[in-house]
Amino acid sequence: MAVYTEVGDEELVDFAAEYDIGEVLSCKGIAEGIENSNFALATTDGNFILTLYEKRVNPDDLPFFLGLMDHLAEAGIPCPTPVHGRDGKALRRLCGRPAAIVTFLSGMWPRRITPDHTAELGAALAKLHLAGADFTMSRANSLSLESWRPLLARSEDRADEVMPGLAGELGGELDTLEEGWPHGLPSGVIHADLFPDNVFFRDGKLTGMIDFYFACTDMFAYDLGVCLNAWCFEPDLSFNITKARRMLTAYRKVREFSAAEMEAMPLLAQGSAMRFLLTRLYDWLHTPKDALVTCKDPLEFVAKLRFHLGVKGPGDYGLE
Amino acid sequence: MAVYTEVGDEELVDFAAEYDIGEVLSCKGIAEGIENSNFALATTDGNFILTLYEKRVNPDDLPFFLGLMDHLAEAGIPCPTPVHGRDGKALRRLCGRPAAIVTFLSGMWPRRITPDHTAELGAALAKLHLAGADFTMSRANSLSLESWRPLLARSEDRADEVMPGLAGELGGELDTLEEGWPHGLPSGVIHADLFPDNVFFRDGKLTGMIDFYFACTDMFAYDLGVCLNAWCFEPDLSFNITKARRMLTAYRKVREFSAAEMEAMPLLAQGSAMRFLLTRLYDWLHTPKDALVTCKDPLEFVAKLRFHLGVKGPGDYGLE
Repeated sequence: MAVYTEVGDEELVDFAAEYDIGEVLSCKGIAEGIENSNFALATTDGNFILTLYEKRVNPDDLPFFLGLMDHLAEAGIPCPTPVHGRDGKALRRLCGRPAAIVTFLSGMWPRRITPDHTAELGAALAKLHLAGADFTMSRANSLSLESWRPLLARSEDRADEVMPGLAGELGGELDTLEEGWPHGLPSGVIHADLFPDNVFFRDGKLTGMIDFYFACTDMFAYDLGVCLNAWCFEPDLSFNITKARRMLTAYRKVREFSAAEMEAMPLLAQGSAMRFLLTRLYDWLHTPKDALVTCKDPLEFVAKLRFHLGVKGPGDYGLE
Repeated sequence: MAVYTEVGDEELVDFAAEYDIGEVLSCKGIAEGIENSNFALATTDGNFILTLYEKRVNPDDLPFFLGLMDHLAEAGIPCPTPVHGRDGKALRRLCGRPAAIVTFLSGMWPRRITPDHTAELGAALAKLHLAGADFTMSRANSLSLESWRPLLARSEDRADEVMPGLAGELGGELDTLEEGWPHGLPSGVIHADLFPDNVFFRDGKLTGMIDFYFACTDMFAYDLGVCLNAWCFEPDLSFNITKARRMLTAYRKVREFSAAEMEAMPLLAQGSAMRFLLTRLYDWLHTPKDALVTCKDPLEFVAKLRFHLGVKGPGDYGLE
């Protein structure tokens, strides 16, 4: 949970006056998101989310993120829509930080994942991938293959504090990933961080996907790799093949993936496990103990990485 | 900021079904309150606050707190109104904790206090005191005089870590308070914790008073002492006599205080400074460094205590 910046009442009223969103009724910091400060903003027109972008977000990326949400919302994807001010701008400053107001999405993220959730997710992810096709901006994935060795180097000397042998295991796995990483697979806009707490449901139906602040231009199948890791393991870290099958089957009904994408999926899923493992490992070793945020355990992704290493073919993900 | 308990989507839907509040649209933990877990709950009927009572609140006190809010709201005091379920109950359980839903109040708490704010506050506090007169339940102030010496005893051996000589100064001051503490002054329901972050304003008008979880039966003038400490000192800890005069003047227009109350006010204000100093001192010395909450500096109240020790009469609070 995190609210890094406290927004004063007077500043907020001035800020909100730049928008056609009615009069501010209240603004409460919400305990979600670890990168930015988020507020539930109630006005006479309804509910909104106010986000102040903190230092972990590169301000140069904000036009991409906000433009993407505009584009996807326009295409009917259930994502937050940036609210544009009277001057047409969606991005302005508040309390010395870049800030934006987006629409409020109903629904809650699911604590207990069922195969029905993963089927809904698969279809929504495919629609997101298709809807991004005519989005003209691009953004490299700054947390893909090239970043992982430098990221490991920053934690390497202390990685064995977390698990004996971890540094060596990850170094070896990076060799494998660097050697086999696919090229030329279908690519476009991906979410890249579509964990359950970024997906809202209501009455079993997917109602929203949020937090596009890792979105980038990369292989669609990599996004599926992220979702395999984020949605298809049980709390005991065993792989639930039913959840994977439902997710991938629902996805391909909307956007069929090629044999080459299917073939690359175990390696892409290993890569995605590596990405979350490395950022969590870094945070685990470098976050002061008195920080506002709680670190997530990196070892969860060691188990996931090892699972994908053992995958022999599509059957292990529940496909024919 | 604090959300101690995470509420699952399925549990929440079942819980909300006990009330006539429409269908749950979303529920987000809010970064306010340090005693309980609070959530902004949006339903098809509007916005509400869901509170889960954590271990610092005695469950036996909850009927008093909720009954008081019912009573005050009925009397037109702008405070949260407990929402009663279909079975008539306002208090039930969620995630193993006592829980209640209250109405949502508009407004924001003021970051920069002006004399206009303190005038609004004074009038509202007096109305609250009058409205409580026919409330039939009572609750002793568990953080009044009798509690201070035992509370100091729990921090005494380490108090000088915070400021050299602090333990001795507080011990001597406790002698003074115990000797001079008034009896027989007008008493009734007091809020006992009416700091600026518990009071909402909109367009300069007071729209809400929240957080009744220290409310109790005690001297009205003690509540004024709390507000003198909470509202009438500048960030540099100098006393702002204009704010005090506006607050007390607005108060007495609604409920006149007696000469005896006025005479007791410096000592009651010392007592109130002592109460916040002692709880903050305890938290400062006993909260683990990795806790979710940020401790407030106890020394602020040493300065306030010393100011009230030097008060010679009503003129020092801005009164004739």
